[in-house]
Amino acid sequence: MPAISPSSKAIVLLSGGLDSATVLAIASQHFDCHAISFSYAQRSLSELNAAKKLAGHFSASHQLVKIDAGAMEGSALTDESVDVPEFDPAEQGIPVTYVPARNTLFLSYALAIAEVRAAQDIFIGVNAVDYSGYPDCRPAFIHAYEVMANLATKAGVEGNKLCIHTPLIDMSKADIIRTGNDLGVDYAATVSCYQANEQGEACGRCDSCQLRRKGFEQAGVPDPTRYF
Amino acid sequence: MPAISPSSKAIVLLSGGLDSATVLAIASQHFDCHAISFSYAQRSLSELNAAKKLAGHFSASHQLVKIDAGAMEGSALTDESVDVPEFDPAEQGIPVTYVPARNTLFLSYALAIAEVRAAQDIFIGVNAVDYSGYPDCRPAFIHAYEVMANLATKAGVEGNKLCIHTPLIDMSKADIIRTGNDLGVDYAATVSCYQANEQGEACGRCDSCQLRRKGFEQAGVPDPTRYF
Repeated sequence: MPAISPSSKAIVLLSGGLDSATVLAIASQHFDCHAISFSYAQRSLSELNAAKKLAGHFSASHQLVKIDAGAMEGSALTDESVDVPEFDPAEQGIPVTYVPARNTLFLSYALAIAEVRAAQDIFIGVNAVDYSGYPDCRPAFIHAYEVMANLATKAGVEGNKLCIHTPLIDMSKADIIRTGNDLGVDYAATVSCYQANEQGEACGRCDSCQLRRKGFEQAGVPDPTRYF
Repeated sequence: MPAISPSSKAIVLLSGGLDSATVLAIASQHFDCHAISFSYAQRSLSELNAAKKLAGHFSASHQLVKIDAGAMEGSALTDESVDVPEFDPAEQGIPVTYVPARNTLFLSYALAIAEVRAAQDIFIGVNAVDYSGYPDCRPAFIHAYEVMANLATKAGVEGNKLCIHTPLIDMSKADIIRTGNDLGVDYAATVSCYQANEQGEACGRCDSCQLRRKGFEQAGVPDPTRYF
């Protein structure tokens, strides 16, 4: 955890999944958190309900930002005509569940909101270990985004350095679950499945479900996930 | 103008103002253009009508992207409770018309759309001469954005370099007007005023109006702007 900047406010990207719930728990130890969740043409709207509940648990304010779905078409996560694939450990490269420029867009809204709220710290739950081949989850991307953000904003120009925190970047899924478990995250309230139903129940078969299930096993923590 | 990449498609940020209209004219000489305009809680909606008309003139497809206004509050351009200031040549620093992280957000949508459309070229009408003190109009910002974009996207990872073009970056307002005039831009159809009315008529007093009026004088081109 880097040194805390003079402002005690932080913006936390909160999807409602396991990773971002853990990030919120970590950030809440050091900052007054404002959580933001994104609404787009995603299949699992139950994630947004989970996010709201998690923000409340960690006494964070919560904001829902609408993303224009027209910009995000062409991915299995946003386009109903593309099937979500089952997990294939032999698959290489960037999967069809990749959403074009997703983390760039999410961080850019976080940056605007950080500037409005005079926050200098942004937390995002990207992970370089279980990153599923998404280019915008790599440390090199986050570093380049931070450099750009400090040139883009009034705060950066005035010398108040913006910091993008990625506390999960080098953790395995099991590490993440152990950390969150110790910090009181209720993982039963989180939704990771790419095609969760309205009740937040998971398919158990997609890439995200498989990584999550394995994480609980390896962490030695009982898996509270409800499967349909 | 850099060498044209193998893809002949380009994404052009088109506000409907004088600068972006000129950018579209320049880009159209070399690329099959897809223009995008942003709808947010901006005062001059007449700009969006201007953008649609300009795209049609240059045979570009046109897409309107809605920006969630909640992320953009706190600026004179998006917040009705903040007055648009009159031009003050003695004013230093970043003006109240600054919109938090605006170009970062706009470029991030352009990046997502470029990836969906397999375009590798994005055009934006930022200008380092008449930049009004906005940090996200500086060459250093654009360069950092381009570096980040190439790390963020599937195209960048696969070696198809994304390029952010800023053809106006070193031009004076007079240079821009002369260039666009030669390329057939109908400046009567463009709206630059921060508080234009529904008919696209300009106040003649704000920062943007003053820069535009002076540009036409210095270019020796008759000013077709309709003032209210």
